[in-house]
Amino acid sequence: MSKQAYLKLEKRFRRIGVIRDINEVLHWDNATKMPAGGGTGRSNQLAELCNINHSLLCDTETGDLLDEAEKDSTLGSWQLANLTAMRRKWSHAAALSEELVLALSKASSKCETVWRAARAQDNFATVLPHMDNLLSLVRECAQAKSESLGLSQYDALLDEYEPGGLSADIDVRFAELEAFLPGFLGQVLENQKSNPPPAMPEGPFNVAAQRKLGLQLMTALGFDFKHGRLDVSLHPFCGGTPDDVRITTRFDENDFTSAIMGVLHETGHGLYERGLPQEWRYQPVGEALGMAIHESQSLLIEMQMSRSRPFLEFAAPLIRNAFGGTGPAWEPQSLYRNLINVEPGFIRVDADEVTYPMHVILRYRLEKQMIVGDLALSDLPAAWNDGLESLLGIRPTNDREGCLQDIHWYDGAWGYFPTYTLGAMTAAQLFAAALQSDPQISLGIAKGNFTALITWLGENVHSLGCSLGPANVIEKATGRPLSSVAFISHLKARYLSS
Amino acid sequence: MSKQAYLKLEKRFRRIGVIRDINEVLHWDNATKMPAGGGTGRSNQLAELCNINHSLLCDTETGDLLDEAEKDSTLGSWQLANLTAMRRKWSHAAALSEELVLALSKASSKCETVWRAARAQDNFATVLPHMDNLLSLVRECAQAKSESLGLSQYDALLDEYEPGGLSADIDVRFAELEAFLPGFLGQVLENQKSNPPPAMPEGPFNVAAQRKLGLQLMTALGFDFKHGRLDVSLHPFCGGTPDDVRITTRFDENDFTSAIMGVLHETGHGLYERGLPQEWRYQPVGEALGMAIHESQSLLIEMQMSRSRPFLEFAAPLIRNAFGGTGPAWEPQSLYRNLINVEPGFIRVDADEVTYPMHVILRYRLEKQMIVGDLALSDLPAAWNDGLESLLGIRPTNDREGCLQDIHWYDGAWGYFPTYTLGAMTAAQLFAAALQSDPQISLGIAKGNFTALITWLGENVHSLGCSLGPANVIEKATGRPLSSVAFISHLKARYLSS
Repeated sequence: MSKQAYLKLEKRFRRIGVIRDINEVLHWDNATKMPAGGGTGRSNQLAELCNINHSLLCDTETGDLLDEAEKDSTLGSWQLANLTAMRRKWSHAAALSEELVLALSKASSKCETVWRAARAQDNFATVLPHMDNLLSLVRECAQAKSESLGLSQYDALLDEYEPGGLSADIDVRFAELEAFLPGFLGQVLENQKSNPPPAMPEGPFNVAAQRKLGLQLMTALGFDFKHGRLDVSLHPFCGGTPDDVRITTRFDENDFTSAIMGVLHETGHGLYERGLPQEWRYQPVGEALGMAIHESQSLLIEMQMSRSRPFLEFAAPLIRNAFGGTGPAWEPQSLYRNLINVEPGFIRVDADEVTYPMHVILRYRLEKQMIVGDLALSDLPAAWNDGLESLLGIRPTNDREGCLQDIHWYDGAWGYFPTYTLGAMTAAQLFAAALQSDPQISLGIAKGNFTALITWLGENVHSLGCSLGPANVIEKATGRPLSSVAFISHLKARYLSS
Repeated sequence: MSKQAYLKLEKRFRRIGVIRDINEVLHWDNATKMPAGGGTGRSNQLAELCNINHSLLCDTETGDLLDEAEKDSTLGSWQLANLTAMRRKWSHAAALSEELVLALSKASSKCETVWRAARAQDNFATVLPHMDNLLSLVRECAQAKSESLGLSQYDALLDEYEPGGLSADIDVRFAELEAFLPGFLGQVLENQKSNPPPAMPEGPFNVAAQRKLGLQLMTALGFDFKHGRLDVSLHPFCGGTPDDVRITTRFDENDFTSAIMGVLHETGHGLYERGLPQEWRYQPVGEALGMAIHESQSLLIEMQMSRSRPFLEFAAPLIRNAFGGTGPAWEPQSLYRNLINVEPGFIRVDADEVTYPMHVILRYRLEKQMIVGDLALSDLPAAWNDGLESLLGIRPTNDREGCLQDIHWYDGAWGYFPTYTLGAMTAAQLFAAALQSDPQISLGIAKGNFTALITWLGENVHSLGCSLGPANVIEKATGRPLSSVAFISHLKARYLSS
């Protein structure tokens, strides 16, 4: 039997991969360079790419070729994994009718636009009908994917962001966190009260100097500027392609840590993209392995490594030089204590790593209810406020600080939220395994030499692409399945000993 | 009869138009932002877009729909013009086999790469075989288009850049210039010798200040920054789309005039793109009308308007302020005299407007001979040097300053060169007509108020898209067919009276 069907699929998915890259460049341009008046034209461009992508992917020939290639006994392991990844992409796309895709795209675009104004005006009522419409389409989509993938409705949505992810597993892990975190948070806050962090360096902090410092740290981490760049956008992200990685940050003159930690976070994402297997470029198996693993790479660099004493031994002198700072506020220990300050708040994106999982658990619970129809959207604001109060002990007094704060649902992305905390748990487990596997990693960090760490991540995560599923990657790299153990140990070590 | 066929074509060409825009954004990114390592990926992206475009355009259905729509007696005049423009695009694309398109793309890409090194090393011999291969493919292409369009081989190539352009007409116009320019140039140089231009302001000129001045002038000209931006690239250009116009310039610390004149030139292109008929967006009839008219819009702003005394009355104070200049070198008359200095040289892109046509006539003559097979490429360097000597009285001593200087042929663009000088003649004729039609235009320029001029250009050129051919646009706007009369009058007025 020849590999003919498989090779035809590779050819077709190569085109899909190239179009995906074009899409990435346009999205980056949108967020960083495009003048406001280019918006309508850009929407037309993205819609056309979506259209072309859908034709290539959902062509009936693709389905037939998949059926045929799956009978091919001559394929190697990467080819088989590639075929699995192709099938997954095809199943997600082909489950939806063209009308549903179009309706979803229109409804999410409309809902997102209305949400922006609704959030600014703290007026949930204005976005409610649009969100209702969007949710009913997303539920239709969940139903269709549920049948096609043989998963529950929520899990069918989750699978798009976390391949093979199951809410039954997430429930167990999140329950472990919920059993631990409230009591732990109380201890940490008590601790902090009796030993408050020292004063922070005072601004303003020159933006050009912040940028230069960001570039210095990126260079130290091995970010390859021949294959990437740093720009500014309203919301930091990592975009572009594996050979042209475009990360962004934003600068605050009063607080250099937000830009710098943002740069380190996105550099983690960027190193992952850049480290994907070059020989499988444009093929599904050569892509990153879902959002939880992606987030683990950014959190490993930002949270595990950079908000640590050894890293700040290396970074504090660079930070001092960048801004001409002198005095005790610029000492590694002082910077460290400030970077790990814990404070319950209403806003997820501003949350520290101790309270962050609570924000995620709240959203995860609510979105599961919404997808199965157990929560009417008119009850969302109250359910949100009740939920946060019970998880974190604080109650939002308005919806801007409550259910209107995040774009995800208003953009149609139900099923995404749990990947943030799965990513944090994965980061902790991977980092612990890395440190244990090679003493050079730990020694290197304090000296600003990250080669051993990045090499370990390259071998154990980046270069694998999607040749294994997330669960297998984690188990192979760390010797055990994902659990909350490493994350909880990390929190205890960091927050109860400082 | 229903408009069904025509409407189907509109739908198809809308997609082609959107893909064209995506292409423009990627090209802009290439030249301004992309890190070097993104090159291979970008080539893949552009090749895929070319592929998609070719499928949409050359689909046999497109030809059938054109045949059918051309029998439709219910179409309005813009629809008919749109149909003509569609047919033209189709004829150019469908004349070439897929193999020939692929071979051309590969050969030009290869030849261009080799040319870059050959030019740097002044080594024509290394690029000769690649150029030979490319030329034979271009001749094959000219032959195929000649049959399909019913034009001579050279004119079939020319038509792609200048719709409806005929070398028989160009021969006549260029003969007029050749009869006039050599004698005129002698007079101008004589004149200049007895009355040399005053000293220029001395640099260095701060780049940020140059940029700010460029933005000021763009704003004064009505460039809409909600729909466009200014960046830096090695070779200045105007790219992007009508609702997102991206112009570029480059900065020289020792000479602010190159960046500023570049900005004014590209702003002329940009105002044209922005002024194209919005209601025909994405349709062929809504596009710009060939390269000569496009160049006329940039030359009208840069050469006709900006290198003039009235404009410098307005601009000199801005220029002084930008660099904190004082003294006679910063006076309008002094800046003007320097901006119109004439000096025969070897390099086309550095040429003044008096000698520029000679550079173009040389290339035009040579490329016509190459296309019909009357000039072997091994004889090109000598033919070039002989030609320049006879036209301009100077002889290059190396090929870097001779036949290796321009990218066009090495990139496969035979038939492009004459549009530069057609553009210069058109600019002169349009500007003279504009000044005559409304005295406010002339008065406005000295005050920095360009509304009347831009409005006139909008009505007489920009908003017409391709609803008329170039010859008709010029005749309608100026009352007579294109000739060298206005250009020659302009040269006499500017260069013999200062």
